[in-house]
Amino acid sequence: MTYCVGLRLKSGLMFMSDTRTNAGVDNVSSVRKMYTWEKPGDRLITLLSAGNLATTQTVVSLIEEHMKAANERNPSIMEVPSMFAAAQLIGETVRDVIKTASDGGLQSEATFSATFILGGQVAGGQPRMFLIYPEGNFIEATSDNPFFQIGEHKYGKPILVRAYNEDMSFEEATKLMIVSFDSTLKSNLSVGLPLDMQMYERDTLKRGFEKRFLADDTYYRRISEGWSDALRLAFESLPDFQMN
Amino acid sequence: MTYCVGLRLKSGLMFMSDTRTNAGVDNVSSVRKMYTWEKPGDRLITLLSAGNLATTQTVVSLIEEHMKAANERNPSIMEVPSMFAAAQLIGETVRDVIKTASDGGLQSEATFSATFILGGQVAGGQPRMFLIYPEGNFIEATSDNPFFQIGEHKYGKPILVRAYNEDMSFEEATKLMIVSFDSTLKSNLSVGLPLDMQMYERDTLKRGFEKRFLADDTYYRRISEGWSDALRLAFESLPDFQMN
Repeated sequence: MTYCVGLRLKSGLMFMSDTRTNAGVDNVSSVRKMYTWEKPGDRLITLLSAGNLATTQTVVSLIEEHMKAANERNPSIMEVPSMFAAAQLIGETVRDVIKTASDGGLQSEATFSATFILGGQVAGGQPRMFLIYPEGNFIEATSDNPFFQIGEHKYGKPILVRAYNEDMSFEEATKLMIVSFDSTLKSNLSVGLPLDMQMYERDTLKRGFEKRFLADDTYYRRISEGWSDALRLAFESLPDFQMN
Repeated sequence: MTYCVGLRLKSGLMFMSDTRTNAGVDNVSSVRKMYTWEKPGDRLITLLSAGNLATTQTVVSLIEEHMKAANERNPSIMEVPSMFAAAQLIGETVRDVIKTASDGGLQSEATFSATFILGGQVAGGQPRMFLIYPEGNFIEATSDNPFFQIGEHKYGKPILVRAYNEDMSFEEATKLMIVSFDSTLKSNLSVGLPLDMQMYERDTLKRGFEKRFLADDTYYRRISEGWSDALRLAFESLPDFQMN
């Protein structure tokens, strides 16, 4: 599996993805699941992927090919006029890839399924973020629905639900992401370090701070250990039940 | 869905289950998922169920019927010589019920699936707890693997992983269960109040303290609200990330 999160903040967008991929439990390797297309001053578009690796890599390769071969599918991701159009482009590509893989095969479409988080900003528009389904349709993050998770999302949701607020700084949001990822890593073998992080600051129209958290990262380890202790203290601070 | 937890403690066993059942999201009702068979001084056996309600209720009804009609399947749950034999009895019954429901129907066996937590003590043995699969086989809780969750288990797992220890008192364990259930309730509509709780104190061979937590329960609300605040404080106590 995979775990990826996209956060919509007042100050911009934040993305984090793990890098584990596995077929069963004994064919495990590491692969980047975060892809960025950037034209400074014009657009920054970032895609996070979860699901069948053959599908997600084909989708990204097709998007890349279309950028080079302008006659194939116009406009390409570097030319689409808006984030909405970018989401449509990814959605159509996903649907085509899954359809092709399924045609005439023995497997069901579910086998080839993939889900994406797409976020960024195109000059003239606002920062926007979408969750794109394998069917090619998509929903947008709003202030009522300010973050998206794909992949193994359940373990890391409770802390997002409770600690997220849209006024968070990027520094606080990084801490939140790491706690959410660490809760997932501690409970599920199919999500693994390193983690890729990217920040996008509103209206900059270029790539923001980026970092890959490796297993021995000092900050990651400090949060992971600190969170265990802080949780235990929080738990102890609550009153025990009284039988009577 | 459902959420049920069984904990194995040094001092005994603890069980908690929610009561929500739903077919889709608009056919929601409340049903007890905790069943107890007791012969004071001889045995206390408690079963928690998750999965298809027709299957789980049929399993329990068959176990009850067999108690009355001694010629059907001997020995009944009130007569089996050990907790292991009780787990075998439940396992065989589950497998038969699912097989019968699947025979000749259009649906796959998955539709009729159900999973159980069985715990208790029979005179002459230790307190034991089992997780019983729809296939009828089962695994036992050990000190390496001291709790079982069935149903919608992912949201509530991180706190169990981090705060459980086998020396906990029943009062602390109740608090832990409620935090785990509250994390699940806050993230998933298919798990709902009221919650049923039962404690089994080692070697008592009778039903221990029992309680149904309703939506307006003072202790439940205090933990639920207190945990939100405590989590936020715990989160704030950790250092923010520093970009550099």
